[in-house]
Amino acid sequence: MTPVRILPTIKSPENLKKLSLKELEELAREIRITILETVSRTGGHLASNLGVVELTLALHYVFDSPRDKIIWDVGHQCYTHKLLTGRQLEFTRLRQAGGLLGYPSREESEHDVYNTGHASTALSAALGLAVARERKKENFNVVAVVGDGSLTGGVAYEALNQIGHLRQRLIIVLNYNEMSISPSVGALSHYLSYLVSGQPFLRMKEQAKSILRSIPKVGWPLIKAARALEELVKKTFFPGIFFEELGIRYVGPIHGHSLPSLIEAFEAAKNYEGPILIHCVTQKGRGFKPAQLNPEKFHSAPPFSIKTGKPLKEDNQPTYSQVFGDTVMELAQKDEKIIAITAAMTDGTGLHRFASDFPDRFFDVGIAEQHAVNFAAGLAIAGLKPVVAIYSTFLQRAYDQIFHDICLMNLPVVFALDRAGIVAEDGPTHQGINDIVYLRHLPNIILMAPKDENELRHMIYSAFQYQKPVAIRFPKGRGIGVAIDKEFKFIAIGQAELLKDGQDLIIAYGNMLPTALEVSQRLEKEGLSLAVVNARFARPLDENLIVERARKARVIITMEEGVLAGGFGSAVRELLDQKEIYHPIFKRFGLPTDIYPMGRPEEIRQWLELDPHSMIEKIKAIYQRAGIK
Amino acid sequence: MTPVRILPTIKSPENLKKLSLKELEELAREIRITILETVSRTGGHLASNLGVVELTLALHYVFDSPRDKIIWDVGHQCYTHKLLTGRQLEFTRLRQAGGLLGYPSREESEHDVYNTGHASTALSAALGLAVARERKKENFNVVAVVGDGSLTGGVAYEALNQIGHLRQRLIIVLNYNEMSISPSVGALSHYLSYLVSGQPFLRMKEQAKSILRSIPKVGWPLIKAARALEELVKKTFFPGIFFEELGIRYVGPIHGHSLPSLIEAFEAAKNYEGPILIHCVTQKGRGFKPAQLNPEKFHSAPPFSIKTGKPLKEDNQPTYSQVFGDTVMELAQKDEKIIAITAAMTDGTGLHRFASDFPDRFFDVGIAEQHAVNFAAGLAIAGLKPVVAIYSTFLQRAYDQIFHDICLMNLPVVFALDRAGIVAEDGPTHQGINDIVYLRHLPNIILMAPKDENELRHMIYSAFQYQKPVAIRFPKGRGIGVAIDKEFKFIAIGQAELLKDGQDLIIAYGNMLPTALEVSQRLEKEGLSLAVVNARFARPLDENLIVERARKARVIITMEEGVLAGGFGSAVRELLDQKEIYHPIFKRFGLPTDIYPMGRPEEIRQWLELDPHSMIEKIKAIYQRAGIK
Repeated sequence: MTPVRILPTIKSPENLKKLSLKELEELAREIRITILETVSRTGGHLASNLGVVELTLALHYVFDSPRDKIIWDVGHQCYTHKLLTGRQLEFTRLRQAGGLLGYPSREESEHDVYNTGHASTALSAALGLAVARERKKENFNVVAVVGDGSLTGGVAYEALNQIGHLRQRLIIVLNYNEMSISPSVGALSHYLSYLVSGQPFLRMKEQAKSILRSIPKVGWPLIKAARALEELVKKTFFPGIFFEELGIRYVGPIHGHSLPSLIEAFEAAKNYEGPILIHCVTQKGRGFKPAQLNPEKFHSAPPFSIKTGKPLKEDNQPTYSQVFGDTVMELAQKDEKIIAITAAMTDGTGLHRFASDFPDRFFDVGIAEQHAVNFAAGLAIAGLKPVVAIYSTFLQRAYDQIFHDICLMNLPVVFALDRAGIVAEDGPTHQGINDIVYLRHLPNIILMAPKDENELRHMIYSAFQYQKPVAIRFPKGRGIGVAIDKEFKFIAIGQAELLKDGQDLIIAYGNMLPTALEVSQRLEKEGLSLAVVNARFARPLDENLIVERARKARVIITMEEGVLAGGFGSAVRELLDQKEIYHPIFKRFGLPTDIYPMGRPEEIRQWLELDPHSMIEKIKAIYQRAGIK
Repeated sequence: MTPVRILPTIKSPENLKKLSLKELEELAREIRITILETVSRTGGHLASNLGVVELTLALHYVFDSPRDKIIWDVGHQCYTHKLLTGRQLEFTRLRQAGGLLGYPSREESEHDVYNTGHASTALSAALGLAVARERKKENFNVVAVVGDGSLTGGVAYEALNQIGHLRQRLIIVLNYNEMSISPSVGALSHYLSYLVSGQPFLRMKEQAKSILRSIPKVGWPLIKAARALEELVKKTFFPGIFFEELGIRYVGPIHGHSLPSLIEAFEAAKNYEGPILIHCVTQKGRGFKPAQLNPEKFHSAPPFSIKTGKPLKEDNQPTYSQVFGDTVMELAQKDEKIIAITAAMTDGTGLHRFASDFPDRFFDVGIAEQHAVNFAAGLAIAGLKPVVAIYSTFLQRAYDQIFHDICLMNLPVVFALDRAGIVAEDGPTHQGINDIVYLRHLPNIILMAPKDENELRHMIYSAFQYQKPVAIRFPKGRGIGVAIDKEFKFIAIGQAELLKDGQDLIIAYGNMLPTALEVSQRLEKEGLSLAVVNARFARPLDENLIVERARKARVIITMEEGVLAGGFGSAVRELLDQKEIYHPIFKRFGLPTDIYPMGRPEEIRQWLELDPHSMIEKIKAIYQRAGIK
């Protein structure tokens, strides 16, 4: 590869302004190399970042950040922006502990106006900035960069609705690549692709002729022809009318890798006295074949070989997501009522095989978690068996729907909460740590978490039989490598399991079980005897087992990979209080309410003192203070 | 008034089919009388129900419920539907304990397909039913009745996006009345009113002429004229293009009080092979002058005089909402950075005066809680001081935004959670009981609740100074009648207050304080001495005060009007455990995880044994069991 020469001279976006078009184009090439080399080593969001190199360059060429405010929706496409805003050195430690966050971060730079991570938030925030600007009589541009995937999220539409209403000066850059993470879905996406497909005016005459030729005198073909003409007129005279009808000026489509076109469009937008949307067409993975061909795989990639595009570490151990997807497949083969729903995460949730084997029974609703839940409610009412697979952090969007549309009506919908617990490298926005708390107080719902990937299978199998709302949480990444039972086993609602006997008691939930066992075994050697209970359920708790054990225990420990405030441990504590079991010493291990830094899961666990060694030391100290032997 | 003769003969929607148009029109009149008489006595949603009498009659005339599925978005407009589906007797006990719910209820009738209460959910559920119908090869119609206000909610758009994508047979009845609860806002609402205003084709020629006459040769007026022509062409040839672009056939506008027009439109829709939207124009409060003139006041009305339209009980005691609104007004007069935001609840949140005095600093974003929060985040980043006033139950919609956009960035936004606690007459969907739990585990946020309306004022004053996310919860209805301080007092973050001394300890939160004091005083007479602490903050707790008192106490009681699972009492318990204070007996009073029936607040409190008498008995029993004197 040719050397990188211009990029090191760019200390801030100002330095861009003096570059010639040719130099900008060379810079784009250098940025691609830098991103590719870094991400192949650190892992990260590759395809989206390769897609917006020119778009980002043009933005920083035309606008004056940080005076002008650029907000990156979702934010995982901010690498070029970070490279242009004084963070080239730190970029080598992308997504590493103490390094650069893979998303915009106000703590990192004044060029990062607004922290993002979850999709579809930028338009609302941009409107807030624009309104504040008018109120304070200041003068700057506000630019929101939004992917077409993000436009499937309802909050983006809520914002468009007010943007069109208030008509403040505001620039929306629509980064159109037909992808959210999975390929974009929904009517608006079709609509955008239809705008892109047309070459208005140029082809119009020809098309009109061919339509007119085909018109018979009467009947259905006549109506079809009339419709075709209607479409043609709309496309020709009213491109982007969807946005125009909301009061937002539409410009496009623009070639998203042509710097001159982008610069021209952004310059024009700068002078527009109202909300304006620039529809840019980009290609995910641009400049790196493997990512162009398989953008979903390279959405968020582990370290890989630039030569082959293959991951550096091949690991055959299946992930929890795969086990989930395969199990649902297996069950769906025998039960045709099973329907799978995802919110723009077909691959991530392990449902790609289900999607291809059962296309009629698979629904990717887009980045629309709220709708996913209510849609499942409709299916459940009609007697089908929906399973909704959404990451723990993203299901937060549907908290109200789970309460109002699922739990109040006690509908049998199974929620698969992937990426529950510490989700390390993506930083604070993506931690799946709140779900136990935000679900535990809702009526009717059953909460489960498996100790390993084999138990996950039995839980999914069982959940479909409970005839109630069920949420199963499981962690990101590989299983722990246990053997997989061929036969499914039914787990009765609320049935915990005693994994190890002992005088005192550890009650652990989900992926904390292996650690709990290790802690107990090592403490045994030091003369402290603690039983280990695999709770399996955070709700309902196995009252009999817990109460029986608790009455005998002098010390009770709980362990969970979730926030402590109101979490699993608190549920156990509430049960003990209710049963008036006040005598044992009670200690909960889990996550404090805080903002977690980036790092590998093991690193974060150590910081939080959730690793076996730290917990053992703390438990020993508890015994010591209490004078128990 | 003339007697009601036809209505009693309607035992089920089938009975409608044999009626003549004249009889249907007479029935509409009878239904209006029945609704008016009942609601004037029981209180309830008047304006919306008077608006959809003909629409509901036409639906049940054309479709065959329960085979055909009618879903009522929001649901508060279901009274005519309930009267036509075998519930006339129960209707006399509307919204009373053991009576008829003011919303659709699957438990009540097979004609109530889907429970609603929160807005914008019907489209998703309808799509679920439509998809299930195709999958099961059944044949029925699915009709979703949605107000234009509900279309401002993002989840409705998420649903439209998939409806247009899948193109299943599905009928959307858009009940357009330019009102959600407050007048509808947003670009789409303007768009709809523009569709309504036009009389396409008829006026076109005339308008075109006048535009053409006004065209000069060059310059801005030329562009304006071109735009006007463009608008005219759009309106004429592409009414409802917003929906059409999403793949949904648009029909309308239809006169929403003309039975023949409605019946004709619904008949046509029945035969359409895809998603179709019927745009009906109705008038809120139709047939009752006071409600027509002031639909916001008659949205949800207390019992009133039919003669005068005035409430039966005039009460000058201000509500918490009024105190909130007035306080924000007062503070805003001195601090021009204060901005108020509501989500379609200007009146309900007490902000009507603020809205009229500070139109530039007031934003009603529509039923768009998610956007409201992110919009506030943008304002806060730009240095303004937003206060977001949303009912506790509706803020559930923005749980993810509060976490992701406010708490992670630690932005100074004040949330006013009106209607927190038991919200009795509206039934299960409207209880404001979850907020302590869904907020307590989020980073940075401060949670407060005042013991009375005077303390609410000081809390709002203080919250604007904390420079952090703050949520203040307060109950529905009147204050307790305390004197209002003229001067604002600053309350330091986390500072509780000892209201009454004693040996043991009651720690109460918010509106439970008066009850806590009563309980303590009455127990004092029976020889049990309990101090009463007004916690003020659920987070951070006043560690010093609580720990100091707890170390001396033999019994600790907590009281809150919120769900117990992970709530305020659990927060206190977590603190005690952390400080290793294990010796006291610990008892939490609050709400179990359950679905609450309707009734007056006092009734519900008695059922839940949260009234003073029940609590006193329980506390005495605790002392007795423990042998403490």
